[in-house]
Amino acid sequence: MGSNKKERIVGNKKSKVLSSLKNLGSRVYNQLENGFFPSITMPSRSTENINYDPDLRQYILGEKIVLRNSRIFTQTRGFTQLVWAATFSHELASQRKTSTLRDVYYSAQAYEMVFKDQQESNNIITDLETVLGLSREDFNIFPEERSAVFGDLTIAYTVPGYEGRTLNLTSHPDGVLIGPALTSAEFVGTTADKVIAIEKGGLFTRFVEENVHKKFNALLISTAGQAPRATRHFIRRLNREFNLPVYIFTDGDPWGMHIAMVIISGSANAAHLRELTTPDAKWMGVWASDIVDYKLPTYPLKEVDFTRLHELQRDPRYQTDPLWQKEIKTFLKIRKKAEQEAFSRYGLTYIVDEYLPAKLGETK
Amino acid sequence: MGSNKKERIVGNKKSKVLSSLKNLGSRVYNQLENGFFPSITMPSRSTENINYDPDLRQYILGEKIVLRNSRIFTQTRGFTQLVWAATFSHELASQRKTSTLRDVYYSAQAYEMVFKDQQESNNIITDLETVLGLSREDFNIFPEERSAVFGDLTIAYTVPGYEGRTLNLTSHPDGVLIGPALTSAEFVGTTADKVIAIEKGGLFTRFVEENVHKKFNALLISTAGQAPRATRHFIRRLNREFNLPVYIFTDGDPWGMHIAMVIISGSANAAHLRELTTPDAKWMGVWASDIVDYKLPTYPLKEVDFTRLHELQRDPRYQTDPLWQKEIKTFLKIRKKAEQEAFSRYGLTYIVDEYLPAKLGETK
Repeated sequence: MGSNKKERIVGNKKSKVLSSLKNLGSRVYNQLENGFFPSITMPSRSTENINYDPDLRQYILGEKIVLRNSRIFTQTRGFTQLVWAATFSHELASQRKTSTLRDVYYSAQAYEMVFKDQQESNNIITDLETVLGLSREDFNIFPEERSAVFGDLTIAYTVPGYEGRTLNLTSHPDGVLIGPALTSAEFVGTTADKVIAIEKGGLFTRFVEENVHKKFNALLISTAGQAPRATRHFIRRLNREFNLPVYIFTDGDPWGMHIAMVIISGSANAAHLRELTTPDAKWMGVWASDIVDYKLPTYPLKEVDFTRLHELQRDPRYQTDPLWQKEIKTFLKIRKKAEQEAFSRYGLTYIVDEYLPAKLGETK
Repeated sequence: MGSNKKERIVGNKKSKVLSSLKNLGSRVYNQLENGFFPSITMPSRSTENINYDPDLRQYILGEKIVLRNSRIFTQTRGFTQLVWAATFSHELASQRKTSTLRDVYYSAQAYEMVFKDQQESNNIITDLETVLGLSREDFNIFPEERSAVFGDLTIAYTVPGYEGRTLNLTSHPDGVLIGPALTSAEFVGTTADKVIAIEKGGLFTRFVEENVHKKFNALLISTAGQAPRATRHFIRRLNREFNLPVYIFTDGDPWGMHIAMVIISGSANAAHLRELTTPDAKWMGVWASDIVDYKLPTYPLKEVDFTRLHELQRDPRYQTDPLWQKEIKTFLKIRKKAEQEAFSRYGLTYIVDEYLPAKLGETK
């Protein structure tokens, strides 16, 4: 894609966010002008309205609609909070300032808007996401957690003071933080032909040191545990904008498996959003069968691990690829788990020299 | 300082690490050649041997010495593990590869060295730190946690593939990760005249967006909660190498206060180390008295907060500056705590426009 087209995409996203927020405001004004108590409708996020969509390969919201009506006394508070959240988000997005969920809670007090606690303001922000079909990161509300990326990707910033400045993501060998500035950047170009996401920070550093980005022509992502939403969106963009296949590498246990799954198919909590998944991404290890094949050092599965495996076995997201059910069964059979670092029992570089090439050949 | 002198310092550190490890090995060989069972001595790290030193303003180890003697059956295991840890650390440092504590545990198995669990291998690495008086980061064993820095500091890398390459730490507005590569870099130069360390990542981003680095001519550090040791060492270097005063800004509660204290005076756990403290750094807020003066939104102190405040009241580190005792008393009196984000109740930029200038004027 040419750089002009990219700028249009990023520009479009920003103006889409602002115009969505303005439209919401206009709807409220129109209702008032026509003599109605204003109200806002949105899809229900209650459990019975969350369904797995096999085509989209993610959870989506069903047909059930809920109303925030200023005329109904018990809904006036929620309606007012939602309109305030939209106003505040519009301020953030148009002034190009970022915020956090916690900050939103305190900022409300500057407007004499009352939230009982942060949970209540968090819920209202999720309501706003649902109404607009946009992620809170789109209107500049970011989480505290940051993960990192490394490799030959050149980006161009769009944040104030850095507009048009480019950065190549090999610039810092500790990895480049995926915060608001990188999230809102345009992708200029890459020579990589794949993305490798890694759960553990220490292993990410090992991969950089061992030149995995060069040897495997890859962009490396450190998810630092469960990938923050900004990182999941970043991975999706790499997959969509450059057609790069994505390989995910986690600990060999139900929790690691699910870190991969949330990158691939998202979570039920984000059923109202569409831009956080990468359905074609592949979980490449540590599989239960790797534990057997590579004779890895292990820990015994605990009760909580077994419970989780049985939950995942029934989860619709784990029905999409026979790999998941096969590996869950193997975990249940061997009753063991292994960490990514377990490969170090064969030497520090075994994972890069032997395991990675074997797996990439296998999963390609 | 000229760049030649800097290179010598960094080069000296590296060769100091390698020669310390070699000396340890030579001592073992000499004992063997002279017909003795080899043994290693080190200061005891037991509680009664940890004392607060008012001159160094940190905890130090006392005179009590412990022995790891290969001749004594119950000590043979510990002795062997310690020698192995030294060998492995020498390999890491000379091959310039980094590792983590977890990786050390698994790597041992590649040498048929047995550790009962990771706790046992962690302890041996701390033994090695104690023997050498060096931090495990010096022999390339890094934690998973990373914090970040932003501002006009130019560094020159020393890691393989990046030797001599420079980076200015305004290059990425999300902040530059303080990992192994940045930790081992030389400082080339800075125009900043102070360091501001911030507990919360969201606020760090706010400070970058509001150009605090320019307005206050500061380097900004995101500690991301309790500062990792590499970050504490990084702050100390900025203070020592450039004579920069350091101001620390945390939540207004005993836990935030102690995040500042650990940057200033270190922890009892690191009593065997000397390069992790910045005794002249100042805790600048959120003070208990700020909660009163700025009428901040608060939460009530919980039982666990009160217990912690009483502990800190007796802690020798909190006897060094009357500020600590005064603020602890105020917390106990108002029975409330406040987060850094609480200033947003006066608008998003109040903290930068009003609070920071007031505090920097006061604490300078």
